[in-house]
Amino acid sequence: TLQHIFKQILKASLELQEDDNRKALLVSRKKKPENTVVQINETKIGNGNQHFIMGPCAVESYDQVKLVAQAMKKQGLSLMRGGAYKPRTSPYDFQGLGLEGLQILRRVADEEGMSIISEILDTRDVESALDYVDVIQIGARNMQNFELLKLVGSVQKPVLLKRGLSATIEEFMYAAEYIISQGNNQIILCERGIRTYEKATRNTLDISAVPILKKETHLPVLVDVTHSTGRKDLLLPAAKAALAIGADGVMAEVHPDPAVALSDSAQQMDIDEFNQFMAEVKGFAEVIQKAPAL
Amino acid sequence: TLQHIFKQILKASLELQEDDNRKALLVSRKKKPENTVVQINETKIGNGNQHFIMGPCAVESYDQVKLVAQAMKKQGLSLMRGGAYKPRTSPYDFQGLGLEGLQILRRVADEEGMSIISEILDTRDVESALDYVDVIQIGARNMQNFELLKLVGSVQKPVLLKRGLSATIEEFMYAAEYIISQGNNQIILCERGIRTYEKATRNTLDISAVPILKKETHLPVLVDVTHSTGRKDLLLPAAKAALAIGADGVMAEVHPDPAVALSDSAQQMDIDEFNQFMAEVKGFAEVIQKAPAL
Amino acid sequence: TLQHIFKQILKASLELQEDDNRKALLVSRKKKPENTVVQINETKIGNGNQHFIMGPCAVESYDQVKLVAQAMKKQGLSLMRGGAYKPRTSPYDFQGLGLEGLQILRRVADEEGMSIISEILDTRDVESALDYVDVIQIGARNMQNFELLKLVGSVQKPVLLKRGLSATIEEFMYAAEYIISQGNNQIILCERGIRTYEKATRNTLDISAVPILKKETHLPVLVDVTHSTGRKDLLLPAAKAALAIGADGVMAEVHPDPAVALSDSAQQMDIDEFNQFMAEVKGFAEVIQKAPAL
Amino acid sequence: TLQHIFKQILKASLELQEDDNRKALLVSRKKKPENTVVQINETKIGNGNQHFIMGPCAVESYDQVKLVAQAMKKQGLSLMRGGAYKPRTSPYDFQGLGLEGLQILRRVADEEGMSIISEILDTRDVESALDYVDVIQIGARNMQNFELLKLVGSVQKPVLLKRGLSATIEEFMYAAEYIISQGNNQIILCERGIRTYEKATRNTLDISAVPILKKETHLPVLVDVTHSTGRKDLLLPAAKAALAIGADGVMAEVHPDPAVALSDSAQQMDIDEFNQFMAEVKGFAEVIQKAPAL
Repeated sequence: TLQHIFKQILKASLELQEDDNRKALLVSRKKKPENTVVQINETKIGNGNQHFIMGPCAVESYDQVKLVAQAMKKQGLSLMRGGAYKPRTSPYDFQGLGLEGLQILRRVADEEGMSIISEILDTRDVESALDYVDVIQIGARNMQNFELLKLVGSVQKPVLLKRGLSATIEEFMYAAEYIISQGNNQIILCERGIRTYEKATRNTLDISAVPILKKETHLPVLVDVTHSTGRKDLLLPAAKAALAIGADGVMAEVHPDPAVALSDSAQQMDIDEFNQFMAEVKGFAEVIQKAPAL
Repeated sequence: TLQHIFKQILKASLELQEDDNRKALLVSRKKKPENTVVQINETKIGNGNQHFIMGPCAVESYDQVKLVAQAMKKQGLSLMRGGAYKPRTSPYDFQGLGLEGLQILRRVADEEGMSIISEILDTRDVESALDYVDVIQIGARNMQNFELLKLVGSVQKPVLLKRGLSATIEEFMYAAEYIISQGNNQIILCERGIRTYEKATRNTLDISAVPILKKETHLPVLVDVTHSTGRKDLLLPAAKAALAIGADGVMAEVHPDPAVALSDSAQQMDIDEFNQFMAEVKGFAEVIQKAPAL
Repeated sequence: TLQHIFKQILKASLELQEDDNRKALLVSRKKKPENTVVQINETKIGNGNQHFIMGPCAVESYDQVKLVAQAMKKQGLSLMRGGAYKPRTSPYDFQGLGLEGLQILRRVADEEGMSIISEILDTRDVESALDYVDVIQIGARNMQNFELLKLVGSVQKPVLLKRGLSATIEEFMYAAEYIISQGNNQIILCERGIRTYEKATRNTLDISAVPILKKETHLPVLVDVTHSTGRKDLLLPAAKAALAIGADGVMAEVHPDPAVALSDSAQQMDIDEFNQFMAEVKGFAEVIQKAPAL
Repeated sequence: TLQHIFKQILKASLELQEDDNRKALLVSRKKKPENTVVQINETKIGNGNQHFIMGPCAVESYDQVKLVAQAMKKQGLSLMRGGAYKPRTSPYDFQGLGLEGLQILRRVADEEGMSIISEILDTRDVESALDYVDVIQIGARNMQNFELLKLVGSVQKPVLLKRGLSATIEEFMYAAEYIISQGNNQIILCERGIRTYEKATRNTLDISAVPILKKETHLPVLVDVTHSTGRKDLLLPAAKAALAIGADGVMAEVHPDPAVALSDSAQQMDIDEFNQFMAEVKGFAEVIQKAPAL
């Protein structure tokens, strides 16, 4: 019973400490009021400018990536996403080119002067990826892969952290805290839709998460309009809503020939659609920058 | 067995007919490509202009409604919402002033030259309400109160139909079809958030529902930013997202003294907050009207 | 400002009163520790015996109802459900026979010595229904049709209240409170599945709701295995789980010829399937009555 | 364009192959009609007997594990669960003892003649864990950690795979397919509740998943009553429902002194509660074995 009392004191102390930590999460704006600016080569995310991060769902070949990169460059974009390790529901679906995919991304990025964002699925692949990517993406399915979070928190690369399929905003912030607690504060959050009963869209874009995350944390926040809606006809309106509500950027998927894409073929834009999309969202982004803020 | 075959033929015929009807829902844009414009006295909703529908959660007194109406008028608004019959989770919560509430709304509206939108909960109250309201609101909890839908479909008043707490977009369209199938096409749809696991907001604003409903139906679509977010700090960003994504208007709650409101006291704006909100959203709405559409 | 203080006192008083009421809901077991037994003619529900309430989804004809009633009688069952007013997603789906359906149910019930449970959708239909039904059912879509709840709370008939499609257990108890607060304590609660992201079943049977409702309230609790699962192959296992977890009864749908049923044709049992189902669940119910309770 | 046609043929071939694979998943009962029996030392799971897998949430000390093991042995149980690597929402919560925890588990298991089930979070920890555990658990948060799934699919140890927090039943089966496709068919599935809007329970126990998984796959299926309900008062009724619906076993958490537990303190049973729980569920399990199956 003395032991019991001792344990109770220990547990109470632990809880107190946890409580203090919670109040003062390192990702919290209470802890750090000014915005964190994430630096990706020459590009700064989180300083008020709004960015467009585009690219194919999966890397399939040098030619495919090259075509997308050239189209992006014409639009003045430099942040390219592309999947080398693909988390697929079925083991029999295309699993990505792996390291070869990262090499293709790097080669094209170097040729075109772009930066690369690519998802890493496994702690064992982090180190080798550091040679190829400019930003490590942690995907929705790994938002609570805590060992992976700790590991990318200990490296010197920006991390793009996607919200889990059914993660609460609070859990999302704690996932970011796993990274920042290891020393890496170069974190970009990304809302990508949550799982609900509604089936008209692939997921339900939780647009309110953007202002909540901007208020509660000092980190930049993106919206992935491709995975949240899963519908090409909603990319443009969803992007406008994301820009209007204050997101630091918009992510979407582009493929030179979506009909033959090895994944997500129905929801990727082709180059023409991408050009139309960019024309309209860039005009929109410029216009709302001029809206009078009070 | 002959009877069985006969029944099968009957059933197949019924199904065929249902199938045809489904393809050609009266609310569908396939059936009627041009926008339906809902006329509320002098105001037209659905013609491309964006509106702001404001007012107290519940009617509590003449003075309360009068103050809100005067503030709205100063902002150039004429569509006032206010609850006389209140659907409350507990029978011991304030249930609204009923017919007396409608009379207060009408008196103020006549004095200030405004139009009134108020929720009706029961088929037995529809007829008497016609003398007082300009728009009958069907609330989220009654979106599948089919007898009420049929009844308001047979009267000569515009209907504002809110999406059910967990209704799919398809069910929402079928609910509107119940109204239009009785002859009344003056229907305004309203997205007001759906129930999900996320508790950071009262409901999850399904912003993608707006472009889907605009595409699938010819009816105007509003966004209720108060009930979807349930947070005063999110009203402005959510309203901007709604305007950006193409909503025909935004609904929100205003109360002269929210601290003493008999319902929803935490999420209603006071008059000062309302004025700030209007200044910013009107500026935003004007600016995005100028964005180049391609 | 004096007025403001006065209003604050009023509101505080109101809240205090609401709080007291909440603590002492009339449906709460804290208020009334012993089980409420609902009396339906000679049958008692809530006294520890487990019941089976069966019948067609919708009343289609005298012959159809008669065949089901005779099959039920052979199995020793006396509580028959059947829909006369049908709440259907589409206005073009079969809406039920209405009053004629209630008359068919009554006629068969009188001939076979059974009791009738049938759903009423509209306050205007309650009074006429009293002549025909033994239990008024309030369906899932009307769980928060508060005027209907109040009205059936003021009549002398047992009420079977189904949980709303996305109602919390707390909201479900408040809905029952609407009924009991008007004087009618003859209420049977029915869990019928909730809406979730999972699509392998029509809804997700929230089996834990049964012991929670039994603990929190003094009312009997049923499980509707047809609407919760929407799959004939799951009726038997779900019924066993319901009986094992302490439900006062199980509801399921039976139709003499499901293939030609005008609603829910895929999920109704035919008479043979019903007989097999009854044989197995009755055996199971008997066996678990003998399990040693500690 | 010739290239385009070639790519289309490639993609079509790929899809055809995926389609064939899907039809014939290795976990599917269509592929293997008889039950897979998972052998854990002397214990067989999946042969019709129903098991109880108990143990502390987290390993905290040798004494703690020893007390639980002794209590389990008295009840005739031999399968002990206990967490050494703990996936916690916050990085500041107790993260488990790691390898030291596995060593404690092994030592106690060897002393008491029991088998150990423990969760592994990271591919880098799989190899060392093989020396200590009898069953590798893949937790809910890692159900789609595909590299981890592939790795445990290539070792010679049974795997207990928990359903993801918001995984569909189909995704759950595909996750198991990742394991079996690497050669390891010793897989036990575990339903542990899904995330819904309902907050009366920690998660919503999807009891219907049990018969669906038993029908669709040949693998044994458990129900974790602790994590699905998160409430000690629901462990017993939920366990009865699980046994009644045909689960191959029930998992629950036991701690010698839950008040001082470093995780999940509110939902773990103490030794007395465990003994009462076992007495009642064992009696129930015996009784339902005697129910006449038709």
